[in-house]
Amino acid sequence: MAAAATSIIVDWGTTSLRAALVGEGGEELAHLETADGISSLGKGEHEAALMAALAPWFSRHGALPVAALGMITSRNGWVEVAYVPCPAGPAELAAGTVRRTLPNGSDLVFLPGLNDPARQPFPDVMRGEETQIVGHGLGEDATLIIPGTHSKWARVKAGRIDGFQTFVTGEIFNLLINHSFIARGSTQPPVDDPEAYRWGLKEAKRSAAMLSLLFSARTGGLAGRLSPDQLRSYVRGLVIGQEFRQARDAGWYAEGDEAAIVGNDGLNDLYLVAADVFGLRTSIGADDILTKGALAVLKQTLS
Amino acid sequence: MAAAATSIIVDWGTTSLRAALVGEGGEELAHLETADGISSLGKGEHEAALMAALAPWFSRHGALPVAALGMITSRNGWVEVAYVPCPAGPAELAAGTVRRTLPNGSDLVFLPGLNDPARQPFPDVMRGEETQIVGHGLGEDATLIIPGTHSKWARVKAGRIDGFQTFVTGEIFNLLINHSFIARGSTQPPVDDPEAYRWGLKEAKRSAAMLSLLFSARTGGLAGRLSPDQLRSYVRGLVIGQEFRQARDAGWYAEGDEAAIVGNDGLNDLYLVAADVFGLRTSIGADDILTKGALAVLKQTLS
Repeated sequence: MAAAATSIIVDWGTTSLRAALVGEGGEELAHLETADGISSLGKGEHEAALMAALAPWFSRHGALPVAALGMITSRNGWVEVAYVPCPAGPAELAAGTVRRTLPNGSDLVFLPGLNDPARQPFPDVMRGEETQIVGHGLGEDATLIIPGTHSKWARVKAGRIDGFQTFVTGEIFNLLINHSFIARGSTQPPVDDPEAYRWGLKEAKRSAAMLSLLFSARTGGLAGRLSPDQLRSYVRGLVIGQEFRQARDAGWYAEGDEAAIVGNDGLNDLYLVAADVFGLRTSIGADDILTKGALAVLKQTLS
Repeated sequence: MAAAATSIIVDWGTTSLRAALVGEGGEELAHLETADGISSLGKGEHEAALMAALAPWFSRHGALPVAALGMITSRNGWVEVAYVPCPAGPAELAAGTVRRTLPNGSDLVFLPGLNDPARQPFPDVMRGEETQIVGHGLGEDATLIIPGTHSKWARVKAGRIDGFQTFVTGEIFNLLINHSFIARGSTQPPVDDPEAYRWGLKEAKRSAAMLSLLFSARTGGLAGRLSPDQLRSYVRGLVIGQEFRQARDAGWYAEGDEAAIVGNDGLNDLYLVAADVFGLRTSIGADDILTKGALAVLKQTLS
């Protein structure tokens, strides 16, 4: 091991605990994953689970500062950490952390999520994506897209996260594919059809009437023009296309603008195609931004 | 029994068979319902099920013309009847019927559904609502709303159904309430809250970004401003409000216009409130329009 381990980043979600041992520059020296997600832990069991997971690293490297983020900081987690309001950068996020000390003397820093009080009718929220955005970099003003079950569109301005908006695209797609009548009849196992996906995107670009457009998943089959092989990708195009249409109409971009697609929820390639259909120029972020972002907030907290 | 029975109308759906014995003017003299929906019947079992259901009426009144409509005329029913294209009135619908003769000599007339070839990207379809519209009356040009799992907005023009559009409002509401994360947490059993419903409608009127707006079902709870008691009605308002917003933007009405809400899917009162929020003046159709409409098409068929 060339570089010296300087800290540990723990991404602690509902179903898993993922940890990375990192060096001074944010390089991952080792990583591990356990099934000790918050849904499997009762009150008072978190510290023991964390100490057990990190024991090999602590015994080798001694006490190390630990940053924890994800659902572990939510109401159902270990310590509920209040959302920090936009605009916020590493300084504001660091000020919103909650600190504990682990039995071996290591600092444990819970990173806060972010909210956007400007959103109507209620403040929008994220928990984890703000750390990815920090890791992607706040040096230049930019528009960022973080695809996911609840996709986020965010603006970086003057070195801080200025605001963001959530679109429940992935959740609606899953509901339609798994539980709806209109999208029933897809080939099993489902086939990915890039042409059908692009077709759905184009239809979404043409029509704002989302509740009506979704019925085309059914009428296309009745008309013999949409096959069971095409159905799933077509519906995905309709829904992601509606996200791009609605984000555009909400002012997140205009045709010809530029945005970065960040995060690693497995949807980045699909979002690149959608951006192309909607005339948005895009770049893809790096893979290690969560670690980098957590390290930046951790350093600011402990400095 | 004062009036003479002149025909039988059979509304034959997926889970039930509902029949009405009607007189010359469309008045219901008797009705019955069995659980012999098309999902419980195999190929070749339909005629026997129908004869058994109608046996009491046939034995008392002799042979009577029977009109059958609903899913019984779909691909999974007894006889698939092709959709008749818009614009269409009783004459066009009658021309699209499929006729059989029952063992006792009664005429059996399968009524067709309707499609709208002008809709993009595929022709829109209805099966049953066209008969309700005919029963409501084609004498005056009008805009009609038929609430349901798949709501229909239709235009009557020059004595015919000129066109229509489907909105999958009820299906999306059910998906959100029964299967989604964002709308989880409603009080059980659910509470109907008229104020929360109207609140949801108003938020839908304010925002076209449906995929984002739906997330307010979650952020409202996080902000402590939307209670578990309010959640279900609020979400219903968001979704029905989006239907009214999208129908308006698709050209079905402008503020101050008039429309009739017809059908009896139990949603009419909710749609009246939505129309009020969106500045659409409304009337409610009569309850017996399906029978009246079926009788009108049946008469035209047998004349």
